[in-house]
Amino acid sequence: MKNLPLSKVYQLLEPGPVVLLTTARKGRANVMAMSWHMMVEFEPPLVACVVSNANSSFAALRATKECVIAIPALELARKVAEVGNCSGRDVQKFERFGMTPLPADRVAPPLVAECFANLECKVVDTRLVKQYNLFVLEVVKAWTDPAQKNPKTIHHHGFGRFVVDGESIQLKSKMP
Amino acid sequence: MKNLPLSKVYQLLEPGPVVLLTTARKGRANVMAMSWHMMVEFEPPLVACVVSNANSSFAALRATKECVIAIPALELARKVAEVGNCSGRDVQKFERFGMTPLPADRVAPPLVAECFANLECKVVDTRLVKQYNLFVLEVVKAWTDPAQKNPKTIHHHGFGRFVVDGESIQLKSKMP
Repeated sequence: MKNLPLSKVYQLLEPGPVVLLTTARKGRANVMAMSWHMMVEFEPPLVACVVSNANSSFAALRATKECVIAIPALELARKVAEVGNCSGRDVQKFERFGMTPLPADRVAPPLVAECFANLECKVVDTRLVKQYNLFVLEVVKAWTDPAQKNPKTIHHHGFGRFVVDGESIQLKSKMP
Repeated sequence: MKNLPLSKVYQLLEPGPVVLLTTARKGRANVMAMSWHMMVEFEPPLVACVVSNANSSFAALRATKECVIAIPALELARKVAEVGNCSGRDVQKFERFGMTPLPADRVAPPLVAECFANLECKVVDTRLVKQYNLFVLEVVKAWTDPAQKNPKTIHHHGFGRFVVDGESIQLKSKMP
């Protein structure tokens, strides 16, 4: 894994890919699938996300205030759906789905070795957790896997239908 | 435009498309491009979004507490980038870019006729506006254009690079 400048994190999350979210609590790592996230600030990168309080990961995230956002490419799509179809209460998901946890640098939850990018995050705002399960995270360290060239991400449209990244177009833009 | 059940709104926004956001203030409509948005609740659909306070739309949204999220397909990509490259302070964007405002049903800002979906929204939470420019919206009415079949959306990766929707895949999923 190669260090990614924090100023480039938004280029990964802004397009709306399905991501994995890892947590760690009481020595046990867990992972869930997530699509409800958005950028909030460029640098330091802030990210908002909604983690349902029906998910086992919710309690871990609220208690430990740490997580990793791992971004899977198309090749992992089937595993991502399987991760989303079960709960960490019942399944040791890293083992079950053959995902490899790697130690993170700044947080306790693990990176996911098979993902092309991993973002170590700390919770910085919980004001909207009670009403909406909405956390604001700061990305404190970011990694990419240089071996995965031009990864295609997936975008969830509901009920297991995913749209895969297609062609790329370049338009004149003043937008960062 | 055809009415869309509010329970289906998340299927449009969850995949992370670039959208247009319209506002209206003092009898004048404006439109901006936006990628920082996410679903917060299924039904009634709640959406969080970040509108920079450097944008003219910020003041209108904060003052009127109403907007429309309009979702453009690939065919509008060039206009979307142009909308994002200028300010409503300098330009009457609907006229300049040949976009057609249509009256909304529940809010003052207009729908965008050329977009394949339009979501009428009211601001329901402003607690994170001061610190992050983050608004929570409720979608109160949704429209789709039945004439636009299988629209392909665009996803911004920064500096005018957009990735277009590619193939669609279906996986077993318990996720809504």
